[in-house]
Amino acid sequence: MIKTISENKLFGGRQLFCAHESTSTKTNMEFSVYLPPQAETGNCPVLYWLSGLTCTADNFTTKAGAQRYAAEHGIIIVVPDTSPRGTELPTEHDNYDLGSGAGFYLNATQEPWSTNYNMFDYVTDELPALIKQHFPTNDKVSISGHSMGGHGALICALKKPGMYQSVSAFAPICAPSSCPWGQKAFTAYLGKDKQSWEEWDSCRLIEQGKVLPPTLIDQGSADQFLIDQLYPNKLQEIGHDQKLSISIRHQEGYDHSYYFIASFVGEHFSWHKKYLT
Amino acid sequence: MIKTISENKLFGGRQLFCAHESTSTKTNMEFSVYLPPQAETGNCPVLYWLSGLTCTADNFTTKAGAQRYAAEHGIIIVVPDTSPRGTELPTEHDNYDLGSGAGFYLNATQEPWSTNYNMFDYVTDELPALIKQHFPTNDKVSISGHSMGGHGALICALKKPGMYQSVSAFAPICAPSSCPWGQKAFTAYLGKDKQSWEEWDSCRLIEQGKVLPPTLIDQGSADQFLIDQLYPNKLQEIGHDQKLSISIRHQEGYDHSYYFIASFVGEHFSWHKKYLT
Repeated sequence: MIKTISENKLFGGRQLFCAHESTSTKTNMEFSVYLPPQAETGNCPVLYWLSGLTCTADNFTTKAGAQRYAAEHGIIIVVPDTSPRGTELPTEHDNYDLGSGAGFYLNATQEPWSTNYNMFDYVTDELPALIKQHFPTNDKVSISGHSMGGHGALICALKKPGMYQSVSAFAPICAPSSCPWGQKAFTAYLGKDKQSWEEWDSCRLIEQGKVLPPTLIDQGSADQFLIDQLYPNKLQEIGHDQKLSISIRHQEGYDHSYYFIASFVGEHFSWHKKYLT
Repeated sequence: MIKTISENKLFGGRQLFCAHESTSTKTNMEFSVYLPPQAETGNCPVLYWLSGLTCTADNFTTKAGAQRYAAEHGIIIVVPDTSPRGTELPTEHDNYDLGSGAGFYLNATQEPWSTNYNMFDYVTDELPALIKQHFPTNDKVSISGHSMGGHGALICALKKPGMYQSVSAFAPICAPSSCPWGQKAFTAYLGKDKQSWEEWDSCRLIEQGKVLPPTLIDQGSADQFLIDQLYPNKLQEIGHDQKLSISIRHQEGYDHSYYFIASFVGEHFSWHKKYLT
């Protein structure tokens, strides 16, 4: 059962915000769905967008300008939230990079997180089933995301072979086990044993032989988090070692903001379109 | 003297937020400027955007997706705030439709507003001079806006003949003297004598013989404020009586939100472009 919170006409299609009771997170969850004009008369492919730290479904929906391209190409956009909401776990709301707004798209194993923080199951299993049930989709699905959500898109594609036709990311956290954001989150959600981190780290998953569908990454050269948090070079090297074709484009002068995403999201849609049709 | 608060690369150009001490409002004022790639090597025309109730320069800058079109056409976008800020006048922050966020682009004559609430002088005189001084503009200028800012765009074009090559609006308040929003604001800013309202009401200005440059208006049919506040038919009738060519397009199913603006702002840029070059 999903509840429609709002509906607005946009580029000839419909922008919805919806809510439902999630079995994965045991909370109410909100997501946004853009239905392009083509979805009024036929089934369309779906692009999932995973957002970064501090975001809800709102940010991408209102700031990226992506619906114009979705309407052009006939692609449904689904944007989940970045964590469970409505819980009051110890320290859950104290840090921008842990707890609410910072689910890291994994299944937590540690208390107090493990009951609710199962965002991987949510975005790869529960939500797709719900979307399939309620909206006019066909069987083609791709995924994209930004920063923490770029990490999310990569691990979803690596851990669910065959599910996604293509994956793209803007400034993804490429090696979470090695950067401060990832180390903080993984320690809390997965525990101190770094072995348990490996299955949520795209670089480690690739080293273990997991493969990616066609992959496009944009990284801004003026990104304030590039050096300390993102490590695209590590992903490129490991991908190269494993003979994966990962296209990483360095975009001169762009930073980590939604202005960067808005500038290139149209190219990502055109690129995904090739694999979604 | 202007101070750059932020700068982000966007569609090959630069999105700036700036601040300065305004002589019109006697406050610090912030505005946004988008410089398209063409502005790096030559002078460009300017489109002013006037926002609606409750907005700052942020809303249009982050939600409309207009910079894509500005980059395509080589147009500088300037977005002022909707009122003075930083003052603490009686009741100034109590209502969404009066005081801060609700300057109505007029020059107030009544206490306590008249010292600071001189947004007409600000947007038609002080800010254009500042933009000309600091950014690579040519002499072509047009103006657009939404709701209260649509009213603003219309009165600027009517009261400053020759200044703007073209004017457009999304869901403008067309007859402020006749609608609750306008009556409340005009009573406070201009006093109870309705004679004084006439010079800030686009319908009345047109009846008095003032003319508009080429004019394009989009109005959504599902706009929740259409019946009570906006009165586009009144503008159309009065424009017709005065033999003005005002194109008012009724957009089926669209509401008053930025989703509506995003859907048609590209067409407005293409349309303004004809008059700006």
